[in-house]
Amino acid sequence: MPGIIKERLFTPGPTPLLLEAQLRALTMTLHHRTDEFRALMRETLDNLRYYFNTKNDVVVFASSGTGAMEGAVSNLLSPGERILIGTAGKFGERWVQLANAYGIEAVVVEAPYGHPVPIAEMKKHLETGGAFRAVLIQATESSTGVRNDVESLGKIVSALPECCFVVDAITGLGTTDLRPDEWGIDIMIGGSQKATMIPPGLAFASISDKAGRAMEKSKLPRYYFDYAKERKSLAKGESSYTPATSLVVCLHGALNYIKELGRENLIANAALLAEATREAAVAMGLTNFAASSPANAVTAINAPAGIESTKVVKEMRARFGAILTDGQGTMKGHMFRIAHLGYYDFLDLLAVLGALEIVLQKVGHKVELGSGVRAAQNVYLRHSS
Amino acid sequence: MPGIIKERLFTPGPTPLLLEAQLRALTMTLHHRTDEFRALMRETLDNLRYYFNTKNDVVVFASSGTGAMEGAVSNLLSPGERILIGTAGKFGERWVQLANAYGIEAVVVEAPYGHPVPIAEMKKHLETGGAFRAVLIQATESSTGVRNDVESLGKIVSALPECCFVVDAITGLGTTDLRPDEWGIDIMIGGSQKATMIPPGLAFASISDKAGRAMEKSKLPRYYFDYAKERKSLAKGESSYTPATSLVVCLHGALNYIKELGRENLIANAALLAEATREAAVAMGLTNFAASSPANAVTAINAPAGIESTKVVKEMRARFGAILTDGQGTMKGHMFRIAHLGYYDFLDLLAVLGALEIVLQKVGHKVELGSGVRAAQNVYLRHSS
Repeated sequence: MPGIIKERLFTPGPTPLLLEAQLRALTMTLHHRTDEFRALMRETLDNLRYYFNTKNDVVVFASSGTGAMEGAVSNLLSPGERILIGTAGKFGERWVQLANAYGIEAVVVEAPYGHPVPIAEMKKHLETGGAFRAVLIQATESSTGVRNDVESLGKIVSALPECCFVVDAITGLGTTDLRPDEWGIDIMIGGSQKATMIPPGLAFASISDKAGRAMEKSKLPRYYFDYAKERKSLAKGESSYTPATSLVVCLHGALNYIKELGRENLIANAALLAEATREAAVAMGLTNFAASSPANAVTAINAPAGIESTKVVKEMRARFGAILTDGQGTMKGHMFRIAHLGYYDFLDLLAVLGALEIVLQKVGHKVELGSGVRAAQNVYLRHSS
Repeated sequence: MPGIIKERLFTPGPTPLLLEAQLRALTMTLHHRTDEFRALMRETLDNLRYYFNTKNDVVVFASSGTGAMEGAVSNLLSPGERILIGTAGKFGERWVQLANAYGIEAVVVEAPYGHPVPIAEMKKHLETGGAFRAVLIQATESSTGVRNDVESLGKIVSALPECCFVVDAITGLGTTDLRPDEWGIDIMIGGSQKATMIPPGLAFASISDKAGRAMEKSKLPRYYFDYAKERKSLAKGESSYTPATSLVVCLHGALNYIKELGRENLIANAALLAEATREAAVAMGLTNFAASSPANAVTAINAPAGIESTKVVKEMRARFGAILTDGQGTMKGHMFRIAHLGYYDFLDLLAVLGALEIVLQKVGHKVELGSGVRAAQNVYLRHSS
């Protein structure tokens, strides 16, 4: 039955693009060393502060989110210093790789896949494990669809005057209530291809005063991802090196949309879609991968018994143009993921769930047609007037 | 619950735009009196023939479809001549208005709303009602969601050497199997904002040899919509007056997409969505407006008992950004319509049905959540391997 099939991204980055924001970049005649660009950049930075929910400065790099993660390590630390890492999946493991790359000793608290980082264990290390210069974690771990308790951890680290708290919020931003200033997040990191609804290519990092002081003492080598240098440049509306201007224009437009929608509403939107997806999964006779503390950014669903998730992912694309993601690394074949971060609405969800029911039946999982959709509809009704 | 709401058209024109085709117009630097434009126009006309399923010439006007309808009347007829009109709704009534405007006597066979034009009655008029110079009808009547039996009528009119058969296929094209050359359709009319997936502003008309001969004798006044003049110009790749170049570029791109997809597959796509919608309506405890011979272009669904369809249409837009249409004229409040013509895929349908279930419940119609979606899924499964 070859018919019209529209490709739709349901991946936790890249995510569906806000076309209005894209279109603005099409007509730009913008040189980056002009007053025009400086004004646009400053407005973007103000809106990034709103988006981050912080009074701190936020810097922007032309890079993927990993670049800003690397910067957090190289800007805060000096050789011989130690850090504490909480990891709950593939992105937590990236902190460990970064520490290794820079020769920084890392104590690692590892949660099994599907579980959040145990904050009590982190606390114990901080109380009894000697001096740590930084604590690093993910707000939401998108490889497993789990949210970490950043608030509790932040309040613990805040009490340590020489230790900075670094949060990878690449998929947490715009999907999770995050309060960097209240909770003492010294560096919080974001990326453009997530809830900001624009293509990949920009990374963001907020910098607290405490982080600023730590950077002054830090001796690890850095150049492109020099947070302090970038912060100083951006205060004048300029970036140190050529900025990715078309992406900055997109970001400017997308943040205006988000500001109009409201940060809280963007988060509530993802929360509704995530809750509806989890309940739909159960109604379809499946189980959610997150044992507890599920993230709003993305829902990880276990493969049906005896069926590889890879088949589900392939059929969803081939039949319906719906692009889901399989598990990463050792989780491949065992789960599939449906994203909610950014520019998704309730009709997007109804569509993907309806398609999923058909695909599950096709790959041999018994499912009552309409049951997942109904569960999602009931979540909508529970939350709406 | 203010969240992200994407506006989606489910109206029988304008319809969702094929963005790829739109984007091509953005970069055009096209003057219409150039070899470049002539080549593009000729390719477009070839592809229009493919889309129309005809060997006849197809002319293009910068106008709405109504302009080409007017042209069919003014190009074929002379004062004092008579025509036979089959009408099954608001668009059939337009033929009558056009005849009145040009002082042409029209015998009208009127089907009650929701029913197709009775071909037997048309036949009787043609056999016993004196001389008719033209028979005019809709392939699909989009105000009621009904398909007329153009094939049977065409075969009857074909036998009359001095009578032309004119079909308004504005919503029939790309949704219905139409064979102008086999069935003897002398003039078939289309519009751009329908299954061709581009914005309003262009009208199309195919012209048979029989129609060509009739035009030579016709004496009604005409200028802008002069079919013969336009046909002659377009043979050289030019239009008589300034063409709507950006729309022609869009059309060129959209027809390339349709050719790649296949005309039959485009029609089958609409047929699947229409069948699924009708079965979903019944599963939701509603009834279809079309008593028989439902169109693939658009499905008209009766309002739930005791509830104005206007409420359904309003709630669909307010809650979910889904733009349906209410009934037209006296049908307003009594039905709502969901379109399938053009750039819709199965996920679009799952989404709108899932939303409709919620809205029906909200306006006071008891519906089992998931039941409409399930009916649509079963139609998909019946047609897919």
